[in-house]
Amino acid sequence: MKKLLIMYIFLVGALVIYVYNYHLENSRINSLSQESGGLSGKIDEKYVMVTFLSGIDYWKNCLKGFEDAAQALNVSVEYRGATQYDVNEQVTVLEQVIARKPAGIAISAMDPNKLTKTINKAVEQGIPVVLFDSDALGSKAFSFLGTNNYNAGATAAHKMAELLGRKGKVAVITLPNQLNHQQRTKGFIETMYKEYPGIEVAVVKDGKGDALVSKQVALEILKQYPDLSGIFVTEANGGVGVGEAVSLLAKKTKIISFDTDKRTLDMVKQGLIDATLAQGTWNMGYWALQFLFHLHHKLTPSLSSDYPLMPSYVDTGITVVTKENVDSFYAK
Amino acid sequence: MKKLLIMYIFLVGALVIYVYNYHLENSRINSLSQESGGLSGKIDEKYVMVTFLSGIDYWKNCLKGFEDAAQALNVSVEYRGATQYDVNEQVTVLEQVIARKPAGIAISAMDPNKLTKTINKAVEQGIPVVLFDSDALGSKAFSFLGTNNYNAGATAAHKMAELLGRKGKVAVITLPNQLNHQQRTKGFIETMYKEYPGIEVAVVKDGKGDALVSKQVALEILKQYPDLSGIFVTEANGGVGVGEAVSLLAKKTKIISFDTDKRTLDMVKQGLIDATLAQGTWNMGYWALQFLFHLHHKLTPSLSSDYPLMPSYVDTGITVVTKENVDSFYAK
Repeated sequence: MKKLLIMYIFLVGALVIYVYNYHLENSRINSLSQESGGLSGKIDEKYVMVTFLSGIDYWKNCLKGFEDAAQALNVSVEYRGATQYDVNEQVTVLEQVIARKPAGIAISAMDPNKLTKTINKAVEQGIPVVLFDSDALGSKAFSFLGTNNYNAGATAAHKMAELLGRKGKVAVITLPNQLNHQQRTKGFIETMYKEYPGIEVAVVKDGKGDALVSKQVALEILKQYPDLSGIFVTEANGGVGVGEAVSLLAKKTKIISFDTDKRTLDMVKQGLIDATLAQGTWNMGYWALQFLFHLHHKLTPSLSSDYPLMPSYVDTGITVVTKENVDSFYAK
Repeated sequence: MKKLLIMYIFLVGALVIYVYNYHLENSRINSLSQESGGLSGKIDEKYVMVTFLSGIDYWKNCLKGFEDAAQALNVSVEYRGATQYDVNEQVTVLEQVIARKPAGIAISAMDPNKLTKTINKAVEQGIPVVLFDSDALGSKAFSFLGTNNYNAGATAAHKMAELLGRKGKVAVITLPNQLNHQQRTKGFIETMYKEYPGIEVAVVKDGKGDALVSKQVALEILKQYPDLSGIFVTEANGGVGVGEAVSLLAKKTKIISFDTDKRTLDMVKQGLIDATLAQGTWNMGYWALQFLFHLHHKLTPSLSSDYPLMPSYVDTGITVVTKENVDSFYAK
């Protein structure tokens, strides 16, 4: 019995030492990964992307960037949005998202005036919010990540000048009442005026964001200016309509369009549209998540009133898409 | 003896199961951290910051951001720069840095024209380069992170309007031949004109970036416009001179200055300068390193000609510094 007792005590002792070492080792690993384990969150840390017209292709690449950043940082994401072009629906969706207290929200604001109050409510509850693609000026969101539309127009002007050998007569078909389209048009016209004296912007027309209307407008312009060498269309539906008009008249008019929906890319591939401008949508999603992660983990210095120091604006860039590189832009 | 044996077998079995579970648990942790262990580099991965006038206070906070990001991402940094305001020295320093093939270079370009060639050489050799604080337009660097000077001027206008109760006569003392100062002045004047009809910008003068000259200019302006209620100075040396002038005449003229060198902060603390605009220098350094890390590790999608998708511009933001928050801005 005595022998049994000694053996018993010995084995229990060995077990205790083993368990102790196990925990020691584990806590060493944990503290190591806190010291220099890189940037990493928790898998139950959820970041939400909120859009409107949530089913359209345009958001796919924004979400891809958001997801890629989440994978890199070991956190989770969720995609929500108003299914319709309906700001009240987007407010409701945002309210539902806030109620579940996520680690952060990236939102594209359909209508700044109607969303600012709800965005501010989230920030006041301590939920980090950044805006992407469409800003809500004056809201308490910490940053805006999106295209600089003036520069996008300037990029279109440079490309058009290259296509036309720096001379000729051009037209713009746009949405004259929408700010981002006004800026695209302004960047295009001012760049032509300042840098390409051989090119004249002859006319600016309203295409109403519609393929049929834009087609009709293009047909009229091409009749009025038979020597027109180029058309810049500031949005994708119009670009398709203009492509059809030029094709119908069998003209050689150069076309530059905007964005990368499937019909536009197909027309670039066929050579009906000479170039289209791709927005940095992946960048919007990727850096939006990075910013939210930094806000959630308080990784940036706080200045006055605990307001964290964040970049106020990120110009996510523009890429010119032509026949040569069109294949990389189809949504995967 | 039989009882002893059973006990013995039982305990050894328990131990074996425990050890087995321990290893199982450990390998699960290891594979988890390989799959999604967050963003982390290697400690021998070196990123270099290159400046000019490398000893001035202004860069300290840029470097702090750069170092903070390096610590978060588990990589190393080095600080280099021309000691003088000498672009040839900066070119030489940059050449030396390139020769050692670092993982990435963040540079503030003293003179874009003379640096672009060397910056492009680095990019062509496969070394990621981003610009911060001072851009080199037209270079092959992947991004620029710095202050939007027009917006900074607008921020100064809003603060001035607040200080003056939206009415009065104001002056601007600036460097009229330098682009960033032209933009600050333009943002200030246009914002006043559009949003504050009760405020008149009476005069814009050259302070030559010098405390004594700016003091003299301020004394003259205050004599010419005895009812002047505010002065916006677009750089720090001038701000100190204007503070001395207003103090000398025992006027109540409100002063808004720029940047956060020690003399400026001291004058804010004493109430001689009412507000100064702090640039987002920490953001410049922090996000410059993040971008270089992403370029080095090829973490962003590549589009045409293997050109990685990066934000083209980051507005690193402006913070208004007043008596209330001045203490957080002294260099640590």
